[in-house]
This record gives sequence, structure tokens and C-alpha cells, in this order.
Amino acid sequence: MNVPEGFLFSGVASGIRKKGRLDLGLIYCEEKGVSWGIFTKNSVKAAPVIIGKKHIKNPVTRAILVNSGIANACTGREGLERAERILKALSEHLSIKTEEILPASTGVIGEQLPEERIIASLPELVKRLSPSGYADFAQAIMTTDTFPKMVSKVTQDGVVILGIAKGAGMIAPNMATMLAFILTDGKIDKEDLKRLLSKAVEESFNRITVDGDTSTNDTVYALSSQKKEIKAWEDFSKKFQDVLYELSKMIVKDGEGASKVIKIVVKGAKTKEEAKILSQDVANSPLVKTAFYGEDPNWGRIMAALGKRGISLDPEEVEIYLNGIPWIKNLIPQTEEEILKKEMQKNEIELLIKLKRGKQSYWILTCDLTEEYIRINASYRS
Amino acid sequence: MNVPEGFLFSGVASGIRKKGRLDLGLIYCEEKGVSWGIFTKNSVKAAPVIIGKKHIKNPVTRAILVNSGIANACTGREGLERAERILKALSEHLSIKTEEILPASTGVIGEQLPEERIIASLPELVKRLSPSGYADFAQAIMTTDTFPKMVSKVTQDGVVILGIAKGAGMIAPNMATMLAFILTDGKIDKEDLKRLLSKAVEESFNRITVDGDTSTNDTVYALSSQKKEIKAWEDFSKKFQDVLYELSKMIVKDGEGASKVIKIVVKGAKTKEEAKILSQDVANSPLVKTAFYGEDPNWGRIMAALGKRGISLDPEEVEIYLNGIPWIKNLIPQTEEEILKKEMQKNEIELLIKLKRGKQSYWILTCDLTEEYIRINASYRS
Repeated sequence: MNVPEGFLFSGVASGIRKKGRLDLGLIYCEEKGVSWGIFTKNSVKAAPVIIGKKHIKNPVTRAILVNSGIANACTGREGLERAERILKALSEHLSIKTEEILPASTGVIGEQLPEERIIASLPELVKRLSPSGYADFAQAIMTTDTFPKMVSKVTQDGVVILGIAKGAGMIAPNMATMLAFILTDGKIDKEDLKRLLSKAVEESFNRITVDGDTSTNDTVYALSSQKKEIKAWEDFSKKFQDVLYELSKMIVKDGEGASKVIKIVVKGAKTKEEAKILSQDVANSPLVKTAFYGEDPNWGRIMAALGKRGISLDPEEVEIYLNGIPWIKNLIPQTEEEILKKEMQKNEIELLIKLKRGKQSYWILTCDLTEEYIRINASYRS
Repeated sequence: MNVPEGFLFSGVASGIRKKGRLDLGLIYCEEKGVSWGIFTKNSVKAAPVIIGKKHIKNPVTRAILVNSGIANACTGREGLERAERILKALSEHLSIKTEEILPASTGVIGEQLPEERIIASLPELVKRLSPSGYADFAQAIMTTDTFPKMVSKVTQDGVVILGIAKGAGMIAPNMATMLAFILTDGKIDKEDLKRLLSKAVEESFNRITVDGDTSTNDTVYALSSQKKEIKAWEDFSKKFQDVLYELSKMIVKDGEGASKVIKIVVKGAKTKEEAKILSQDVANSPLVKTAFYGEDPNWGRIMAALGKRGISLDPEEVEIYLNGIPWIKNLIPQTEEEILKKEMQKNEIELLIKLKRGKQSYWILTCDLTEEYIRINASYRS
């Protein structure tokens, strides 16, 4: 894993979660870092989101502090105050300002952070900081994730972009219980970083859905240590985008209980908004998702999902392709069911829906819906 | 079961489904019946819906023909023609006009009806007509339903209202794969029946959700044999409404894999539309539904669902009650978790969410989400 220059990482078990489980992570930027952040659109916002939105406006960012186990959402004024006191304690350990730290939390809603235990763990967290601590950090931010999510890319002029994320459930367009941290040593000013991050999020985290639920804590932070000149901007911005896209795909792949990733593409819609709604309705339909799980080429469920909002589609004009193979045209299957079934067994599937209404298109990533999703969410307090 | 005067029923195994399984049902009205119908809002409409919408305008209705196994949706012109030929054959057996028959279908989308087998079964279907044939009829229209759904009420002046329905999956507000037939011997003109049915559907079938999916075939028909004078209109209209409400509750109860019915009530919203959206978002949240299945009083998921659309709620002003027991106020649990867990074990649960934004309210019925839903939908071609 290539790590950008100027960053140190660590993760410790602070006792928020069960004994010995890493639950507190820190990213430290050695120089005056430049950052931007994008947050959940859920109107019920967690305390770290409220604080993060304020701190992100500061010209300098030096650290990101993340905990798992408790979301610090629906915790009122008390939750805000606890978070602020924790950040203050950390700022003293690192000799930086409180507003130079960006916070993020993920976990159960409605419980208060164990402030004393967290503050007591900060010296150890700071002591453990190292360039190779990213793996501990990635572990510390996981909840029902089954694997840590990290992607790293190097541009032709040696600039490194490292992304670390967590996902699992409550994943819907416009993010979800997902946290992502994009770190680079490429020198970039705040305005450029803001534009770059917004565009990249729009083409990645805003296009994934696991269960249609949106969380109170979603946060994507980008932070640059400003160490290296970016000469090839095109290459940098492309690889930056790739890091976010690959992370978002990992999140869907690790969607609670998911066994496959499905890219839903809608082409030929009247407007982009129409293409978006139709792809979302297919991507979120439990009947479509269970059909993919059952590897059952049941195209009627796709048609029903397309018609759900009453957009006046003529089903005879809908063409469906599975991994590029013609599936439905004029309401008639174009390929033997056995061949389609085999395609549905793959881990990555593309479902293309072509309309004849206009020229607009949209895509979204989703996953199948399995018994495991129910088991996880009926038993795990998240 | 009280059966209204003037109706005969039957059900046969026509061979659409596996051998011996009842799959074709008929309701026959001995006199010139008066009918009305309400149909799916899905823009992908099944052939019987297209025909039903036309036939419902006819002043006289004499029969309702229903099949299960194949939805006759996404079947194009061929599907329409097959349905019309079947209705024509039945009209000849019954010596009535084709437009006096209302059709309905439920089952797999995208397959054509086995027209010949169905037409060959019509003589037997007609021969078996009897006042006590309603149980066969109710069986014949079932798909993944685990029990037939029938409710009957008698008014103080002896008018009978009988409702027969099928439901299971693809149930979302504005109906779903649900068919319901409301029969009465009360004398009523078409305009009054139309008003009564619309109002009753709004307070019953339009308030149920199983999986947020809306079907191509949803239909509610009301048919009166005009046999008895309705003297106590209030009582009649109340009992008519009760029949629809009880049927809709049965449909949620029998939601695919459901173990409990949950009534979500939102009060104190700014507008009725806001109350509706919020209650739907809670009712459709997979995380809320799995928490109810797991009997886990995880109120944070309710808050997250309320905030999902970005309606600017202050979570500190949200009060939550479970079966009338105070649960959350000012973000603080008001009752011991053990007591709440016990309430969640009940088969029928009321979740009341009180806001302080205005005076509007809405309610909706939903069910929990279980592994069984996945098993049914990943393996059953519906």
C-alpha cells in the first residue's frame, strides 16, 4: 500500500466496544494540511457532523479523529459537549488547535460516548502514530464491515492518493453510514480540493445503495499534506476519482450480507433526473435484489420497479441487457435462461436498461439482498 | 362466513400452475350488478388492468374472473388479445356481455396465459358456481399467501358485505400485488359506490406496505347485487370501510415472511403530506423493520429514518411511544429496555411518533422484515 508523505496513523482499543477491539483511529498530518468534507443530507445529524461542518472551514487541518461503536447521533447538547471536550484533549496532546481536528463517528445512535475512557486512551493513540499505522486505523473504524477498505494510487509524477473507508449497512444514494478519508501529498488549494471532492463523490459514494437507508453520520474527508507539486493535473484528478470509485464499490461489495455487486445503468431517459429515479427504483427494489441473489432472470420485477413511480414508460420499448448480453426486447427474452442464469452467478454484474425516451443516462451500484442482511440487522445493535 | 345474496362463486385448477392447484376463480352476480374498481398506479399495467379500467365504466357488471400463477403483465398486444378471448368465451358460457366481466390476474410477469387450458376449464368453472364456493375462489387467487383472506360484516338492517383478498409481497402504499373483491347485496348506485370505495381504499389498501414495491396488477373491485335496500347508510359505510381495513391488515400480517404487524402513526406534522412521507420512510426502512423482527428497541434507527429526506426535524422534539408506553422524549429513553422488548414481542404493535411541527397526522401499516422474505423471493418466481 503506497502511503502519501506527511501522514501518520494509529488505532487503539479505547473501550467503547468490547475489550481489545480497536475502536479509535487517528490520522495526523505533519504539516499544515488543506482539507474539505462532504456530509450526510439526513436532517438528523450526528454531533461529529455538526462539528466537522464547522472545522472544515478552517484553512488548516492537522488531524482526523474517528471512533466506531457509538455514532454520537441523537445525543443532544451533551453529545456535542463530549465530542468537543475529547477534541480539546487531543489538541493538547498534539499541540494543535481544536478546530484543526476533523471528527467522525459510526455506530449505535442515541448513546453517549464514554468520554473518560476515550480521553484516557489519547496518549497511547498519539504515541502509536506511524506511517504504517493505516491498517490499525482502517480496522478501528469498521463496524459490520467484513474487511477493511483501502485503495492507493500513485500518479505519474509520484503523487500518492490513499483512501480508507468503512461501510456496510444504511447505504443509500447521498452516502450512508459510511466514512471515507482521502489523503494525498499532492499540493492543492482548498477551492480546488472542494471542487475535486464534490465531483468525485457525485460519481462514487452518491451512487451506491445497499438498503435505501441514509445515515446520520456519513462523512467524506479529503486532506492534503501539501508535500508534492502536482504537475499532471489530469492524471491526479483521474486517480483521485478512481480511489473514490473503488472504495465505493468495496462498500457495496461488503454491503451487509451481499454476495454480488450490480451496476444498474439506465440510458435513453428523457432527463437525467428521470434516469436517476429509474435506476434508483430498480437498485432499491427488494424483489429485484432478491432475484439477483436467487440468480433468477426474472425480468418482470425489473419492469415493475421501472413503472413504480408512474413515469409513463411503454414496456414494449424497454430493452434490457445483462453483462452486455441482450435479455429483453419487445417484451420477449432474447437469450436462453440458462445462459442468463450463469451471468447472474458472477460477483459483478451490469444491468443495462435502454429506453427510447431521450438521451439522458445514469448509473448506480447496488448489491443483492440476502438472509444474512436480516441476520445482521435483527441481532446487531447498530 | 355471511355471504351477500345474489352471488355465486367457484374455483378450479385450470393448469396454469402445478397440477391440482386451484388457479382460476369466478364470481357471478345473478342480477344486474353495479361495480367500481381502483387500480395500480404503476405505469407498467397488466392486460387485465387495462381491460378492467374499460369494463368498469359499463353500467352493468355480472362477473369477475381471476387467475393466479401468471400476471399477464408485460405481455404486449398478445397478452391483451388472449385475455379478451378468454373473457369472450366466458361471456358465452354465462350468456352475458364481455364488458360485463371484470378481469384480474396475479403471478409471474412476462409470461403469456395458457389460453386454451383456461378456456377448456370454463365449463367446469361455471358448473361449480355456488353460494358456498367462496372458499375455493379465495384459494384460487392466492400466490405466496399463507392463508386465504376473507372478512364479512352484516349491517343492522341485514345488508352483507363480503371481502376476499390476496396479498403477500410487492405491497406498497397505493396498493401492490394485491387483489381484493368487495361484494355486497346493498343497493347502491355507481356514483355512491365509487365515492365509498375510493374513500375506503384510501384508509386501508393505500396505507399498507410490505416491501415498498408496487405491482403491475393491483386491483380492488366492488360489486353490488342490488338485492337489499340500505336503510342505515352510516352503518353500511362504516362496515364497508371495516371490511377493507381488516383485509388490508390481513395482507400485512401475511406479508412475505412477516411475523408482526406494526402501525406507524405520525402526529404533529406540518402538513398531511409531511406526516405521510415520514410514516412511509419509517415503515419502509429495512433497518427499522429488522429491528422489530429482532425485538430490539433501537430507536436510533427510527430517528435516522425520520431524517432521511432532509425534512428539518429537531430530534430533541421527537417523542416516541410504543403501544402507548413512553419510549423517547428529549432523546432520553423513558422506559426500561426489558419492558419495551416485551412489547416488541407482540404480534400487533403501534409505534407513535409525535412531532411538534403542526397538527397533521397520518398512519400506515407495515410488517417486520425476516429471513423468510428473502427465502421466498430468492427462490419463488413471482
